[in-house]
Amino acid sequence: MKTAWRILVLNGPNLQLLGRREPGVYGSAGLADVEARLAAVAVEMGLELTCRQSNHEGMLLDWIGGVPGHFDGLVINAGAYTHSSIALRDAIAGVKVPACEVHISNVFARESFRHVSYLSAVCVGQMCGFGTDTYEWGLRALVRWLDTHVTK
Amino acid sequence: MKTAWRILVLNGPNLQLLGRREPGVYGSAGLADVEARLAAVAVEMGLELTCRQSNHEGMLLDWIGGVPGHFDGLVINAGAYTHSSIALRDAIAGVKVPACEVHISNVFARESFRHVSYLSAVCVGQMCGFGTDTYEWGLRALVRWLDTHVTK
Amino acid sequence: MKTAWRILVLNGPNLQLLGRREPGVYGSAGLADVEARLAAVAVEMGLELTCRQSNHEGMLLDWIGGVPGHFDGLVINAGAYTHSSIALRDAIAGVKVPACEVHISNVFARESFRHVSYLSAVCVGQMCGFGTDTYEWGLRALVRWLDTHVTK
Amino acid sequence: MKTAWRILVLNGPNLQLLGRREPGVYGSAGLADVEARLAAVAVEMGLELTCRQSNHEGMLLDWIGGVPGHFDGLVINAGAYTHSSIALRDAIAGVKVPACEVHISNVFARESFRHVSYLSAVCVGQMCGFGTDTYEWGLRALVRWLDTHVTK
Amino acid sequence: MKTAWRILVLNGPNLQLLGRREPGVYGSAGLADVEARLAAVAVEMGLELTCRQSNHEGMLLDWIGGVPGHFDGLVINAGAYTHSSIALRDAIAGVKVPACEVHISNVFARESFRHVSYLSAVCVGQMCGFGTDTYEWGLRALVRWLDTHVTK
Amino acid sequence: MKTAWRILVLNGPNLQLLGRREPGVYGSAGLADVEARLAAVAVEMGLELTCRQSNHEGMLLDWIGGVPGHFDGLVINAGAYTHSSIALRDAIAGVKVPACEVHISNVFARESFRHVSYLSAVCVGQMCGFGTDTYEWGLRALVRWLDTHVTK
Amino acid sequence: MKTAWRILVLNGPNLQLLGRREPGVYGSAGLADVEARLAAVAVEMGLELTCRQSNHEGMLLDWIGGVPGHFDGLVINAGAYTHSSIALRDAIAGVKVPACEVHISNVFARESFRHVSYLSAVCVGQMCGFGTDTYEWGLRALVRWLDTHVTK
Amino acid sequence: MKTAWRILVLNGPNLQLLGRREPGVYGSAGLADVEARLAAVAVEMGLELTCRQSNHEGMLLDWIGGVPGHFDGLVINAGAYTHSSIALRDAIAGVKVPACEVHISNVFARESFRHVSYLSAVCVGQMCGFGTDTYEWGLRALVRWLDTHVTK
Amino acid sequence: MKTAWRILVLNGPNLQLLGRREPGVYGSAGLADVEARLAAVAVEMGLELTCRQSNHEGMLLDWIGGVPGHFDGLVINAGAYTHSSIALRDAIAGVKVPACEVHISNVFARESFRHVSYLSAVCVGQMCGFGTDTYEWGLRALVRWLDTHVTK
Amino acid sequence: MKTAWRILVLNGPNLQLLGRREPGVYGSAGLADVEARLAAVAVEMGLELTCRQSNHEGMLLDWIGGVPGHFDGLVINAGAYTHSSIALRDAIAGVKVPACEVHISNVFARESFRHVSYLSAVCVGQMCGFGTDTYEWGLRALVRWLDTHVTK
Amino acid sequence: MKTAWRILVLNGPNLQLLGRREPGVYGSAGLADVEARLAAVAVEMGLELTCRQSNHEGMLLDWIGGVPGHFDGLVINAGAYTHSSIALRDAIAGVKVPACEVHISNVFARESFRHVSYLSAVCVGQMCGFGTDTYEWGLRALVRWLDTHVTK
Amino acid sequence: MKTAWRILVLNGPNLQLLGRREPGVYGSAGLADVEARLAAVAVEMGLELTCRQSNHEGMLLDWIGGVPGHFDGLVINAGAYTHSSIALRDAIAGVKVPACEVHISNVFARESFRHVSYLSAVCVGQMCGFGTDTYEWGLRALVRWLDTHVTK
Repeated sequence: MKTAWRILVLNGPNLQLLGRREPGVYGSAGLADVEARLAAVAVEMGLELTCRQSNHEGMLLDWIGGVPGHFDGLVINAGAYTHSSIALRDAIAGVKVPACEVHISNVFARESFRHVSYLSAVCVGQMCGFGTDTYEWGLRALVRWLDTHVTK
Repeated sequence: MKTAWRILVLNGPNLQLLGRREPGVYGSAGLADVEARLAAVAVEMGLELTCRQSNHEGMLLDWIGGVPGHFDGLVINAGAYTHSSIALRDAIAGVKVPACEVHISNVFARESFRHVSYLSAVCVGQMCGFGTDTYEWGLRALVRWLDTHVTK
Repeated sequence: MKTAWRILVLNGPNLQLLGRREPGVYGSAGLADVEARLAAVAVEMGLELTCRQSNHEGMLLDWIGGVPGHFDGLVINAGAYTHSSIALRDAIAGVKVPACEVHISNVFARESFRHVSYLSAVCVGQMCGFGTDTYEWGLRALVRWLDTHVTK
Repeated sequence: MKTAWRILVLNGPNLQLLGRREPGVYGSAGLADVEARLAAVAVEMGLELTCRQSNHEGMLLDWIGGVPGHFDGLVINAGAYTHSSIALRDAIAGVKVPACEVHISNVFARESFRHVSYLSAVCVGQMCGFGTDTYEWGLRALVRWLDTHVTK
Repeated sequence: MKTAWRILVLNGPNLQLLGRREPGVYGSAGLADVEARLAAVAVEMGLELTCRQSNHEGMLLDWIGGVPGHFDGLVINAGAYTHSSIALRDAIAGVKVPACEVHISNVFARESFRHVSYLSAVCVGQMCGFGTDTYEWGLRALVRWLDTHVTK
Repeated sequence: MKTAWRILVLNGPNLQLLGRREPGVYGSAGLADVEARLAAVAVEMGLELTCRQSNHEGMLLDWIGGVPGHFDGLVINAGAYTHSSIALRDAIAGVKVPACEVHISNVFARESFRHVSYLSAVCVGQMCGFGTDTYEWGLRALVRWLDTHVTK
Repeated sequence: MKTAWRILVLNGPNLQLLGRREPGVYGSAGLADVEARLAAVAVEMGLELTCRQSNHEGMLLDWIGGVPGHFDGLVINAGAYTHSSIALRDAIAGVKVPACEVHISNVFARESFRHVSYLSAVCVGQMCGFGTDTYEWGLRALVRWLDTHVTK
Repeated sequence: MKTAWRILVLNGPNLQLLGRREPGVYGSAGLADVEARLAAVAVEMGLELTCRQSNHEGMLLDWIGGVPGHFDGLVINAGAYTHSSIALRDAIAGVKVPACEVHISNVFARESFRHVSYLSAVCVGQMCGFGTDTYEWGLRALVRWLDTHVTK
Repeated sequence: MKTAWRILVLNGPNLQLLGRREPGVYGSAGLADVEARLAAVAVEMGLELTCRQSNHEGMLLDWIGGVPGHFDGLVINAGAYTHSSIALRDAIAGVKVPACEVHISNVFARESFRHVSYLSAVCVGQMCGFGTDTYEWGLRALVRWLDTHVTK
Repeated sequence: MKTAWRILVLNGPNLQLLGRREPGVYGSAGLADVEARLAAVAVEMGLELTCRQSNHEGMLLDWIGGVPGHFDGLVINAGAYTHSSIALRDAIAGVKVPACEVHISNVFARESFRHVSYLSAVCVGQMCGFGTDTYEWGLRALVRWLDTHVTK
Repeated sequence: MKTAWRILVLNGPNLQLLGRREPGVYGSAGLADVEARLAAVAVEMGLELTCRQSNHEGMLLDWIGGVPGHFDGLVINAGAYTHSSIALRDAIAGVKVPACEVHISNVFARESFRHVSYLSAVCVGQMCGFGTDTYEWGLRALVRWLDTHVTK
Repeated sequence: MKTAWRILVLNGPNLQLLGRREPGVYGSAGLADVEARLAAVAVEMGLELTCRQSNHEGMLLDWIGGVPGHFDGLVINAGAYTHSSIALRDAIAGVKVPACEVHISNVFARESFRHVSYLSAVCVGQMCGFGTDTYEWGLRALVRWLDTHVTK
């Protein structure tokens, strides 16, 4: 019997404000709602899911540094750090974890400084613009990618 | 009873070469395989699906111009035109069709001229990097978006 | 007796959508309305007028390539190709036809990528911002320019 | 009975040299000739026309600042200030006068620093390249725009 | 009777060094001196004032995220994070707190990378160059702005 | 007994339109109202205050050139000249007058060409965004700076 | 006995105008003359030669897509598409055909936008500036390259 | 007998401050001293010399516009306008007066925005860095150039 | 007798992964190995050595802020923060500690965003490319620099 | 009887290493082999051929300066100086020798700083990418160009 | 009695071609003529003059390196090296010789890559555009500068 | 017994001036002193050391071209050529010699054009800022690198 994939979902700066911050852009679901929804998907798909959020870049780095041996894949919404953090890029590349970058809003329809991501090049893929559903699509896509590319 | 969403899937330049062109980057499935897979998903989801490909920017524009009254959503992989065609951007914006931009490869891990998309800003969202599966995720995400944002 | 000037009016990508696409920007008159209005002006001015539209850059190039011997002047709204097509620039310069570049909207009040035109430098002049009337002003200005600069 | 539109025609730096300065570029008509021609058009169209020229940016600003209550529209050839004066842009936007930017030469066929205009974005439209006739086309276009967009 | 405005004063990286770090640039008053001075102003003006400093961007984000319901206004000297932190910008915009950006030194007279602020655009206003007095002017200006723009 | 500080308040292009120009951005107080308010503050603070406005860059330069021997400090809102005038920068630096640059609106929340100031680097400090109150804060800050840095 | 190399010669936009368009730049030989000359060289060298021209980028893409199995080498003058078409680059790379990029004029002595080629990096080599003879040199060089690098 | 060359010496913004403004950079001679020295040189060389200074760009333009028929050559120190005024460039080019651009300081050893001159390209030559003596060298060089290139 | 130099060795983000992260680039020695090697060198040289690592920029800032009175020199590998952290630059400059910037890999042979360092300009010197030995060379060089430039 | 064309073949920096330096890029033929091959071609074509190589830019300039009266054409591979030497450009333009620029490798498929050539614009044409054969093609093309454009 | 100033005149690449290279730009006087003219001026002014020319940047550096103890001033036309040689800049700054940069043509009226000089910032001043007379003006200006700034 | 490493130390332009040129930046030790110091280190380490200096880029290239068979490693301070010489980069890469780039001063604390090195990417590592000691550190680091990476 196949062992369950262990997936880490990381949320970065200001995502604790989800549902309260600019609902027109980010929707009205709070972070707990989003994580609950993902937990339900994980049950459906037979995954082990862990969700964490921090405003601290260093904490996100600590968590990614701790991936080897504990997680098989990463779904990450690094928020504003997406556009400036070479350290997060190095961490993902360093631990070699298959990752999916997600964004709730369509970052390409916003300010030009949001069009650049230091993370995309070291992730398997990137998804954005479908609201908080984007996490679910990222999770599903990453798991199928693991199913077809990684031998557990 | 809900009427089926009518979805147009457009493929742009060189995608007729799928399966034969750089399989390491684009996978070994041909365009017909991809379209067959999408057709199966469409049946599962109760969609009306139409797939077209052209190397001609003008043909893609003609097709998008013909969307109103015939299609409810657009999944588009504009290939290399993604990075240079303001006309495709104007067409999508002009007919106001909800669209999902997809790319087979992770465009952000390739040459820098592939990091710019004229289409992203006028689409609902963007997805890339999960191989030919990306079409399926784009289709599923777009349809759920239509379900929750559009009244038929 | 003076022979009538033969004027070609070319419309580029997405202009077949005129009247349906973003009426706030482009007005509610359709392309046929615009062409009918121009035909009336042509009668008033004693011109031979030919109007064509295509979404295909290659078709526009074919038509411009065919200008010598058939047309004396060109009124061109190349739409989005304005901002990217060196080929259209080369075609106009190549056949040496006196041309007036027109735009329905004020392109300079829109995104910065619309502020650049590859065509302007090879045209006699440029006009924009007066809605679909801009075609008429372009036509009138070009004809007077022909009257004063070209011997038939 | 309709009251006549009151139009201010402003000419900026070095345009007092018209007819004497680079006739190959600007034509041989002097500024007085151009203004006389516009006066004749104004009579034909039933306009109240006022023409002024200054090399002083501050004077042009004073005049534009005085537009409200005295003029309904502005035809402006700001000469070299076109490419550098944010103050003129602010003035036109500040008094909210419908304006047409004109240039005698085809500025887009000259040095690249002449391709940028701070004024275009706050004007209704822009015209260039048809020699001193450009003033007339700008005047006619602006008046028709006023006829169709402004209630006196 | 009017309730007192609750103001949060945030200091970012290296401001704990105030008085010891480059006194020629930042003055000889320590952070405690500055906060004591602000406390005296707060008493004079009838404000509730809270002062915090951290070198941790994440801590600053946590604090701004906690503003809603606890503070009415923000005076922020984000130090070097001013020039790079999109996350701080998003936090201020996300919680919609009226904010005044302050800098002790005249940042515009220093290296060019200090001329860019990600925060300014989401603050009510910006002040710099008047030494540690700048905090006081920022506080006074923000409070008057709250008095005239916000209903408690 | 201390002699009163002599302060010159200069307003640049289009500020004569204050109260009439884009009240949403600049407020409804006219320039006379602003100057009256500053005069009241001057009486309170025991200052000699002189207020001048001109749309002419040369006039502003003449006035700054005349500062030595007549004024101890300068509050300047150079309007649009802020972003382009090296001459104003040279004048302030040349006469070595302590100056405070002020802007009514938050220039950093507007077009990017308004984010650059040639004046900031030669002023003591800069303030913006608090409406016409910004003049008062600039005046108060400059006077305290004079009190603590300059011996009369 | 060695089988003949099958060479495709593609000409892009406006090259149908050869001989009529700017003879000072491109010479007076028409496209048919050039193709006849190449045919004579092909006979001399024992090649199978096919020459095609189109103004349609999509047609050029269709033809390149059809190369595998039908042609061994490509001589391409993509005209103005050289400088903007990522799609042509992708097509050549996609079908892995050894190609020689040619230009009639010395593109590096013309406008700076003609100095950039999207094709060069995926071709074996590039040649320009020797008039219509450049095709012949490109053909000869490509064939020798095939002789020494490719086993038929 | 040869008629004397008529030379106009123009000084631009802030040069009325000469001798008082940053003597370390510009020397201690006032503008009157400089003009007296040039007058002495003019007597020695048999020239008619006229010296004018203005802080008003428009005034400088008026004076240059008045050159034809009254002056044979121009020595110009346009001060800070050097780096921004396309209008001064157009004026010099427009009246076709042989001109020498001079600067007291070595502009190339100062801020980078002083390294650009809009005037240089339309002058015969440029000189800088030799203090107020630079005017004399500019005058002498221009006169010899007139002697050898212009027939009176 | 000379007191021992007190040296702080700081390692930034992801350096806890040393030995596990991309051994081809960074070598197989872990951070503990590197620190043990440095400790041995410190014994040989008679130094007091303290080694710390953190993924948290704020923690690195806290540590540098605590340098005065406790350390005489700093060897710092700020990892990815090197390329983006103005705060680290300000901290080193603020506490005026002589510092040596080190990098394990040759940063100049990697992505261009790694070629920029905000730290170099405020350090005594920089070293890179000699693997984990680079720390030792940096330490030795810094100590000799202290020996010859600083009086204890 | 026609006099033989006298052709100078110049090789610049590091080309003495040919055959030993990166054979994968430059091939295994040494410079002497290349020159011997060109000598054979020269015999076949009835040319006078002179081949020289230097690592010294000044020597290359001396040689080009000596062209007039001694050579009719120049084939030049300036190696790395191609991308930086304005002096070589000036020399070729100064002596007005018809020249062909050649490169052994496809410079456009390498680092971006190799895509710029200061020489191309002053040469008749440019060729690259066909290995050491490129010299031969350059020689043949240049000679035919001389045959058709220059009268001996 | 005052000792004569010892002046070195250096000419860089391609200036040995003077009189033969583009006489329309550089005049018909050869380098020997120019040096003879300067020698005559030197006699008139009581100078010791030494003139040298080399195409070798290294030779120019050797000569400048040898200035201390042998020369009091330098007149340098570094030709094309002006625009690229940091080494020449370092040499002039290193030996601290007062220098005047000269150019025969008006470099600012030519290609933009000729508008940048690495030398200007380390010279006393710069002169250009007055043909070969520019050397004389540079010599005279430098000598007067030495007379007034340097004690022999 | 291990054969001694043969190390070439190359110094580029203006380094013959060491000790005389800007001692504040480069120290008072002359080049002979530096070479003597390195010779002593070589004796200590059992190396064969050869030191050369030239102002001629071509000479440096000749020497590097001669490395194979004669030297095992290279310590190079290319002075100002560091920032512009692609030829030196190609030479080092071409002969595949392990190299250490050194600079006496901290180039990153100086003008921005000194922050770019064409050499770094093809060297093993880079060191700067520790005065003339930097050569010694570079030599020691390179030798240890040879000891651990190269088999003699």
